[in-house]
Amino acid sequence: MSKASSKIIAINAGSSSLKWQLYNMPEEIVLAKGMVERIGLPNAIFTIKRAKGEKFERIVDVSTHELAVQMFLDELISLNIISAYEEIKGVGHRVVAGGEFFKNSVVIDEIVLKKIADLIELAPLHNPANIQGIKAFQKILPKIISVAVFDTAFHTTMSTENYLYPLPKKYYEKYGARKYGAHGTSHFYVTQKSAELLGESVDKLKLITCHIGNGASITAVRYGVSIDTSMGFTPLAGVMMGTRTGDIDPSLIPFLMEKTGINSVQEIIDIFNKKSGLLGVSGISSDMRDIIVACKEGNKDAILAFTMYINRIKKYIGQYLALLNGVDAIIFTAGIGENSDIVRSKILEGMDWFGLEIDESKNFPGAEGIISTLSSKVKILVIPTDEELVIARAVEKLKKK
Amino acid sequence: MSKASSKIIAINAGSSSLKWQLYNMPEEIVLAKGMVERIGLPNAIFTIKRAKGEKFERIVDVSTHELAVQMFLDELISLNIISAYEEIKGVGHRVVAGGEFFKNSVVIDEIVLKKIADLIELAPLHNPANIQGIKAFQKILPKIISVAVFDTAFHTTMSTENYLYPLPKKYYEKYGARKYGAHGTSHFYVTQKSAELLGESVDKLKLITCHIGNGASITAVRYGVSIDTSMGFTPLAGVMMGTRTGDIDPSLIPFLMEKTGINSVQEIIDIFNKKSGLLGVSGISSDMRDIIVACKEGNKDAILAFTMYINRIKKYIGQYLALLNGVDAIIFTAGIGENSDIVRSKILEGMDWFGLEIDESKNFPGAEGIISTLSSKVKILVIPTDEELVIARAVEKLKKK
Repeated sequence: MSKASSKIIAINAGSSSLKWQLYNMPEEIVLAKGMVERIGLPNAIFTIKRAKGEKFERIVDVSTHELAVQMFLDELISLNIISAYEEIKGVGHRVVAGGEFFKNSVVIDEIVLKKIADLIELAPLHNPANIQGIKAFQKILPKIISVAVFDTAFHTTMSTENYLYPLPKKYYEKYGARKYGAHGTSHFYVTQKSAELLGESVDKLKLITCHIGNGASITAVRYGVSIDTSMGFTPLAGVMMGTRTGDIDPSLIPFLMEKTGINSVQEIIDIFNKKSGLLGVSGISSDMRDIIVACKEGNKDAILAFTMYINRIKKYIGQYLALLNGVDAIIFTAGIGENSDIVRSKILEGMDWFGLEIDESKNFPGAEGIISTLSSKVKILVIPTDEELVIARAVEKLKKK
Repeated sequence: MSKASSKIIAINAGSSSLKWQLYNMPEEIVLAKGMVERIGLPNAIFTIKRAKGEKFERIVDVSTHELAVQMFLDELISLNIISAYEEIKGVGHRVVAGGEFFKNSVVIDEIVLKKIADLIELAPLHNPANIQGIKAFQKILPKIISVAVFDTAFHTTMSTENYLYPLPKKYYEKYGARKYGAHGTSHFYVTQKSAELLGESVDKLKLITCHIGNGASITAVRYGVSIDTSMGFTPLAGVMMGTRTGDIDPSLIPFLMEKTGINSVQEIIDIFNKKSGLLGVSGISSDMRDIIVACKEGNKDAILAFTMYINRIKKYIGQYLALLNGVDAIIFTAGIGENSDIVRSKILEGMDWFGLEIDESKNFPGAEGIISTLSSKVKILVIPTDEELVIARAVEKLKKK
């Protein structure tokens, strides 16, 4: 290992979880990764996995994010992956909502931290958890550089006509009611990676990036920057997801309130977010793998859920084809996008009018890279996303400044 | 005039208005048309226009729809267009919401009338007015055939995956929460007419029909039937309109309620319906003609409103191109679609990747028929809509049975 190399941690903190990945940078080598789940709850789960090593899991008591950090750092020492806390030279944190303010990753100081807190209303569940993660590291490793990487940053380049809603303008000006999008770090990663795979400069490419996981968003990328994305003011909008409706007529809110007797708007929004999507239509599961199994068994509701799911993504791809006046490549990433050959196949089925052709011999579970035919007018790619690497790179970059 | 010909009236009743058109059928000759506005209000406005004749207008007192009907029938006699009420052999009524029940035009009897009343919750402003119109004619011309033509009927062929929302299924099964669409009579008319103009059988054509008026909807038509449309459970959904947002993240409802202190959901929905769209963004007008004038004067908000408006329609066209795997023709109709060459031009600008090419020498105000270049992969058409004719034809057809 070269003398210049240093250990950097990428963190994704949830309200009761802490996901981490330890890198040697700038070599971009993953040394270990792990997760602490059920923080503050009985029987927290602690997992750790060395690079090319086995995964260890144990049930512990972890009452705070701070203790979770201490626990995995200690474990890194006892596994001889690091010899002391001081070996860690930087930490990067995923932050869900950066609003219009954070257009890039930044070094965290008191002002930045306050601003992230100010943006809580845009991500009421996520930003507070992200702050907890940041503060835990500030206590335990107060001297190292700490960087925030925003899930919304990549989308801050969206065109005004795409991010504004057709509302009275004061709601944007006074309250920031606009489209912010999400999964920006992932859309950014696959944008860069696809340019590499296509041997083309990113600023010459028009792309549609499909981040399809339990949450899902589709982005129109022109010359390296996001110009439109399917998620909206919140992650509820856009395509149908595991438990979310995606786009839906808002008039259904007062209608369903009246019909069901539910008199809280937020409760209806919760139904749209948590009980709808694949789960709501199939009545079985929010997990695409379960839906596909049920489809094969002939379950009609599962088949309908699957068909609706595919249909919404196909229509978003069509939207962005029109917006971009054609594209060079369509990229699939995230849980479902990376792993489900059938989902990819069905989304692009019957698009020969566009000269779009998937090569089914290259489209199998675990496929990576180009999966379109040689004659396809648009390249189709599968790229495993790597948000942690983007975070580690941001730390490495800002550390040097 | 042949002996078989008969006079038929097409009616479009609003809560305080009654629009009528008198035909000689089956010749499809318009003999006269007119409107009574401000029914039940002081200074109602009565207008009548003979075919190729002048338009008369006068201020009168008209307290009920029944009186409005009597008034224009008397006027038809005094203008020698008919000699007695009995000459009218049938009347057709536009009905906004037919739900899933009415898939075609039907002869109105007590059961039909009750069913239209049952569907009021799907069109709380419109169906009651339509019923008033129907009842007025039942009183004055009790013996003639009376037909209901539903704005939703054309969309009852939509595919399940397109009309269902990704909600828990019980909301559809119990309450009918689904996409119904609107402007069906217009989408149907231009579908038929475009087949005629293209010299092709309608069941061989894939079309995208763009009904762009103060309200606007885009429909994907495959082999003569609607398979998807942009309006949703209500006319709020879909593209941006004169005063409506079109598609918007429903999470904005609780957010704006909290921010503005408005504590009625319906009030927010009203803002989405009545104060948004072109009006909300421009701050000037809901009328595209005013917006275009303001754009020419360099008004930035008007330019933004115009750009957003075009952008939403372009994206819906892209959606339906993907859904239909390409189309034979794109059709523009209704107020803006028929009259605004600049709107048509901007919607289809930068779509050469699709082989889509408008012929600007054919695209002028008042243009009709094909306005694409000879080499365009997709034909582009302007067709003035004629919902009244569809209604008159429905009466003529059902009268014969």
